[in-house]
Amino acid sequence: MGDSPILSTPGGYLRALRAAPPLVQCLTNTVVQQFTANLLLALGASPAMDDTPGEAGGFAAIASGVLVNLGTIHTEEADAMREAVASAHRAHTPWVLDPVAIGTLRVRTELAHELAAQHPTVIRGNASEIAALAGAGAGGRGTDATDSPEDVLPAALELASRTGAAVAISGPTDLITDGERVWRVPGGSALLTRVTGGGCALGAVVAAVAGVAAAASGDDTADPTPARGALTPTQAAQAATAAHALYSLAAERAEALSAGPGSFAVAFLDELAALDPEDPALAGPLQEAEEVLA
Amino acid sequence: MGDSPILSTPGGYLRALRAAPPLVQCLTNTVVQQFTANLLLALGASPAMDDTPGEAGGFAAIASGVLVNLGTIHTEEADAMREAVASAHRAHTPWVLDPVAIGTLRVRTELAHELAAQHPTVIRGNASEIAALAGAGAGGRGTDATDSPEDVLPAALELASRTGAAVAISGPTDLITDGERVWRVPGGSALLTRVTGGGCALGAVVAAVAGVAAAASGDDTADPTPARGALTPTQAAQAATAAHALYSLAAERAEALSAGPGSFAVAFLDELAALDPEDPALAGPLQEAEEVLA
Amino acid sequence: MGDSPILSTPGGYLRALRAAPPLVQCLTNTVVQQFTANLLLALGASPAMDDTPGEAGGFAAIASGVLVNLGTIHTEEADAMREAVASAHRAHTPWVLDPVAIGTLRVRTELAHELAAQHPTVIRGNASEIAALAGAGAGGRGTDATDSPEDVLPAALELASRTGAAVAISGPTDLITDGERVWRVPGGSALLTRVTGGGCALGAVVAAVAGVAAAASGDDTADPTPARGALTPTQAAQAATAAHALYSLAAERAEALSAGPGSFAVAFLDELAALDPEDPALAGPLQEAEEVLA
Repeated sequence: MGDSPILSTPGGYLRALRAAPPLVQCLTNTVVQQFTANLLLALGASPAMDDTPGEAGGFAAIASGVLVNLGTIHTEEADAMREAVASAHRAHTPWVLDPVAIGTLRVRTELAHELAAQHPTVIRGNASEIAALAGAGAGGRGTDATDSPEDVLPAALELASRTGAAVAISGPTDLITDGERVWRVPGGSALLTRVTGGGCALGAVVAAVAGVAAAASGDDTADPTPARGALTPTQAAQAATAAHALYSLAAERAEALSAGPGSFAVAFLDELAALDPEDPALAGPLQEAEEVLA
Repeated sequence: MGDSPILSTPGGYLRALRAAPPLVQCLTNTVVQQFTANLLLALGASPAMDDTPGEAGGFAAIASGVLVNLGTIHTEEADAMREAVASAHRAHTPWVLDPVAIGTLRVRTELAHELAAQHPTVIRGNASEIAALAGAGAGGRGTDATDSPEDVLPAALELASRTGAAVAISGPTDLITDGERVWRVPGGSALLTRVTGGGCALGAVVAAVAGVAAAASGDDTADPTPARGALTPTQAAQAATAAHALYSLAAERAEALSAGPGSFAVAFLDELAALDPEDPALAGPLQEAEEVLA
Repeated sequence: MGDSPILSTPGGYLRALRAAPPLVQCLTNTVVQQFTANLLLALGASPAMDDTPGEAGGFAAIASGVLVNLGTIHTEEADAMREAVASAHRAHTPWVLDPVAIGTLRVRTELAHELAAQHPTVIRGNASEIAALAGAGAGGRGTDATDSPEDVLPAALELASRTGAAVAISGPTDLITDGERVWRVPGGSALLTRVTGGGCALGAVVAAVAGVAAAASGDDTADPTPARGALTPTQAAQAATAAHALYSLAAERAEALSAGPGSFAVAFLDELAALDPEDPALAGPLQEAEEVLA
């Protein structure tokens, strides 16, 4: 699997996404399904919220990327998640685990640990969720983080190494790691914490961009079967970094147009749709990787 | 059951809807429940999203119209759908089947075929979904159509004849048929494909307008019991055509006020609420029927 | 439990809420989950929509307030509601029951009566729902009230006395009672009836404000364990009145900025976020209580 030079900037990922819209299967909580689907559509991806047992596995095999978000869990959704995750792994579909509000809440915490052992491509959450999944913290307060990304970086590095996933932590400055190096994405908008799904929907965007990366990696193989290879943790971290960068830029621009959280959510969709792959703000290289475990 | 001369134009249907708001029961996917309810409220109808087994059947008997949309399916929703459909048929409540994303997805495809045999009043979907239900295609890509309405017209005619339902196909120009004739509704907005529920919520509007037609048909009978008769396929197709025309006009006007998909969704609700039955744009007859199987 | 002089005006409750954001657990219908969470976030509270059996009880013990809304009910949600309600009662977490659309719909009506016997802190609904729960009416038409608040006041007083809950009735002028006295909140906006969740989300705001009141009542006890006492019906009614007043003021201001129900919902979130505890419009005492059963 070779390098994909076109995937060296956020604009490059966006160009590839618009050229071949990824089909993103979201097994996500019912609170944010609508916002998540609208966000993917605005960006230019194609959402599919199939969480039906008996279908979810088959869908994950053909999807470009899969999001598994534990925000609201009932028995059938959990069964569909297990199906989708197993199928995604077999088919080299990149999949993102978002362990929403784990820590003291028993059902989701057990499920998060179970799924984290099933080869997620990216694990994303806020600092408290990442700490709890790494076994280094008790979790936050509902969906609110009570830790900061920099504080939980050691836990994130350990989690990445143990699971083979890239780990992405949302915060005032986002941190992404492949277990060895760290990428940082500053900026964004505090209003994202005043709109439900501001974090959850980012997981779907990561799945979309990882799907773009997986398709590109497949294009590089001489052997057309399988059409795509599994992303390496570094490729996954780069894709996640690009996704966070696209998200942050649109959020910053939306905030400038907003009178509050209601108008921000509307403007955020408009600004995601208006993102231009040729925009100079998306032309810089992914925030230079810092060797942390050299 | 006589003709209802007031129901000869989209404006006429809208006037009747505003005068006696139909109660529309929506058994629909969790992604679009909120948008669907808001759209019905904006238009002037009264939504009720009751999909609880043990209730859904009783509700369907008193509802003005019922939507059954297969976008997300779990066991209890499927049971509630079967209840509602049986009850709607007995009570002459018009009901709309939206076979979302059927084709290769097993659970929904089997359920769609089962429900299509239970006397739907209208079947609506995109071209790929209609082709798949007619047995003439493999379905689309998630919720995206990979076929065009005109291409699948023969399949739609066959499906209408076999099920006794009117069939409505969304696309750049919508096609509606009663199995013999075809109505066309041009216009609308491509932004409807960038907002989740842009198609699904149309099914609810069709159910609302069909409910208005059923109430009007009941008014014409000398015998007050039952209060309404079953719509004929032609009456159902005319109601669906009026619903598509109302939807398209509001979408066109909303697009002109929009900066992107976020502001479009907001403006679409405002424009639906602002539709005026006396608007000259709603005063023309339903797009003249074309004999296709003469 | 002493009086909390700071909680004598709507602005006082809002100041306390912003100083220590309550964590509000919402077991609510899937139609309005997103709007409800966004509304709480806009106001300054922290939503958590945990309705998973095995978790919901534990969460209710640590939450500041709990909303139980019967708009859409499936087996697991109903189980989670029973868990949450029992736990909230034990932990003195104030909880709000919203018996959406009860009356003729069997499943929710039975569940509403069962839960109403489990010590709700506040029961809120429209006039038809309150009448139905009190055994004094047949319910409304879906979620539409067919009665007026003043008409059902006797039933509300009886319901409050029987259950020990404060009862809050939405309408053109809202009525709140502790079983002996009545508070009135005029104003608001008719557009709240054109946005799904306009009533349901109010229940979440009542739970948030009741949570603020419970925390304040705990502060007044010399004994720090338990940290909070159960609210009296009068304290609950005062908190509900403050919640209705905050809601009405934001709705009035949003209506003035709106072109229809779509832009109203957006502006309503912005205006809730912009509410200022020091606003003179929030500085008046709660609408003076009227002795009705003196």
